[in-house]
Amino acid sequence: MGGDHGPSVVIPAVALALSALPQTVSVLLHGDEAVLGPEIARRQALGGRVEVRHAERVIGMDEKPAQALRRGKGTSMWHAVEAVREGKATAALSAGNTGALMAISKLLLRMSADLERPALVASLPNPRGFTTFLDVGANVDCDAARLIEFAIMGEAFHRAAHGLPRPIVGLLNVGSEEMKGHEEVREAHRFLREGSLALNYKGFVEGDDLTGGAVDVVVTDGFTGNVALKAMEGAARFMRSELKMALTANLAGTIGAALARPSLRRFGERLSPPPAAPLLGLNGMVLKCHGGAGEVDYAHAIRVAVDLARSDFSGEIEQNMRRLPSAMVGSGQAPAEGGV
Amino acid sequence: MGGDHGPSVVIPAVALALSALPQTVSVLLHGDEAVLGPEIARRQALGGRVEVRHAERVIGMDEKPAQALRRGKGTSMWHAVEAVREGKATAALSAGNTGALMAISKLLLRMSADLERPALVASLPNPRGFTTFLDVGANVDCDAARLIEFAIMGEAFHRAAHGLPRPIVGLLNVGSEEMKGHEEVREAHRFLREGSLALNYKGFVEGDDLTGGAVDVVVTDGFTGNVALKAMEGAARFMRSELKMALTANLAGTIGAALARPSLRRFGERLSPPPAAPLLGLNGMVLKCHGGAGEVDYAHAIRVAVDLARSDFSGEIEQNMRRLPSAMVGSGQAPAEGGV
Repeated sequence: MGGDHGPSVVIPAVALALSALPQTVSVLLHGDEAVLGPEIARRQALGGRVEVRHAERVIGMDEKPAQALRRGKGTSMWHAVEAVREGKATAALSAGNTGALMAISKLLLRMSADLERPALVASLPNPRGFTTFLDVGANVDCDAARLIEFAIMGEAFHRAAHGLPRPIVGLLNVGSEEMKGHEEVREAHRFLREGSLALNYKGFVEGDDLTGGAVDVVVTDGFTGNVALKAMEGAARFMRSELKMALTANLAGTIGAALARPSLRRFGERLSPPPAAPLLGLNGMVLKCHGGAGEVDYAHAIRVAVDLARSDFSGEIEQNMRRLPSAMVGSGQAPAEGGV
Repeated sequence: MGGDHGPSVVIPAVALALSALPQTVSVLLHGDEAVLGPEIARRQALGGRVEVRHAERVIGMDEKPAQALRRGKGTSMWHAVEAVREGKATAALSAGNTGALMAISKLLLRMSADLERPALVASLPNPRGFTTFLDVGANVDCDAARLIEFAIMGEAFHRAAHGLPRPIVGLLNVGSEEMKGHEEVREAHRFLREGSLALNYKGFVEGDDLTGGAVDVVVTDGFTGNVALKAMEGAARFMRSELKMALTANLAGTIGAALARPSLRRFGERLSPPPAAPLLGLNGMVLKCHGGAGEVDYAHAIRVAVDLARSDFSGEIEQNMRRLPSAMVGSGQAPAEGGV
């Protein structure tokens, strides 16, 4: 029921995704049966592979996490996460309210391995593939222990999602010299460099390394991560609109753009990161699809969920976490309530 | 002598800039007379408007600020800043080592109005003009008082640089809700909103507002600012290279790009911010030109310096600072040594 478009996007996306996935993959759709039921029945190709679970209510896109926890029971989002807890689903996917999804997931699934809070991960395109970037907004205040946890979770996620045996991890800073940056960042750097986690740790990286391709995983606090991610999204949007204006300002430009249209489309696709990202650190798999996803993006998000469900990134996270000295685990200060 | 290209760029740039500036504007060139002298003598159009001041040494691009302070005396950078202190120049412009320029400027010119450290400002393009963005790397740890100082300095700078009587100021955060973000950010927000500074304060803004055009001045700490700036630069570089690859991948794209070349060039120019930025908060004007500036950019930087020298942004900063309750001024914690 979630996202900007609700069932009008989700149902065709499910049909599109399932047509390309093995028969062993099936879908539980949580939401208003009166809306979902007839639509599913109409599509014979879905026969037997999609089951509708009725939910009375939905979480509003503007509800605060605390509100969602109080009145979330019985909503489609709650049901979806509960199905993971009860082992009826391998992964839950939602395009709804991110803060509510995090809060409900944390309550129902609990954090794994003494972690404090889920981390939100973004995938950015780079010349070699994708950069895994975290945290992008779930944890505003982070001490060194939190940053080290992000490195562990991000590395395990990148390996599972992209099949890279030894992803290269970098820690975001304002310069590559040892003395720069916050104390928390320097402390995390010393620990990661010392090497007991057996991560492929490269050291400090800077903002332009996010799309540079020299590292696979970039770690930062949720404040810096959220600002950097949105700054890049804004810059990309601005560049596209300026490019469009420049190309339609005169006849030669317009003809040129028409000739180059397939190339420009490929360019646009190349810049689009995967439309779904997991919440890392939970006992169970929950993925967030971006709210504005259309049919093709949502279908892509379902395929991402299936791929990740086949991998064992949660297991890898837990294994990495066990290498941490116990003093470091769970020592993170309690972060402010409310993700982004 | 500074920047990636030294005199081979600076001298033609001076000639280019002066040809478009009134005769009352003249230039002091600090550096190796054996290199600069003959080049200047060769260019008759410069007659009487450029004077070479010999300096034995230069500051290396990799020297640490502390090193630059110890052995900086007698270098071209030191001379240039000293000329401002002695009233022989209205502004100093350098494409050299940023950290050294900040340290030498702070030592020789001192901070104005109890400010702690200079702030580094960046100009970003937006659909309506330019966004003034600070701090982009001079102050890694910032308390609320520092953020308020940045708002004051940024507003005064934007008014002076762009002639806008009431620039709109925003404070960078991860969301527009009151409870989000760091405590320092929320404290600065409460003070700015209360309104005793008489700034045109809009409230919290997010990363994509940097290039959105809804605000003119965006304030943040030097860690977040530096990461966001470099992330956007990296994203823009990545997009340009992807665009180029997409447009040369096949014949139609190549022909299209050739037809659209003037439009694409305009697009590129539109994305280029002014190549010089002042260090804000000093008793005297010092501007940093980006190290990779070519002839046209460097000439543009000289014109920016002349424009700013005619404005009274330092006076406006001081005036705004006087509106601050004395308890807030200079209460910033001592930031770590070494800018970016």
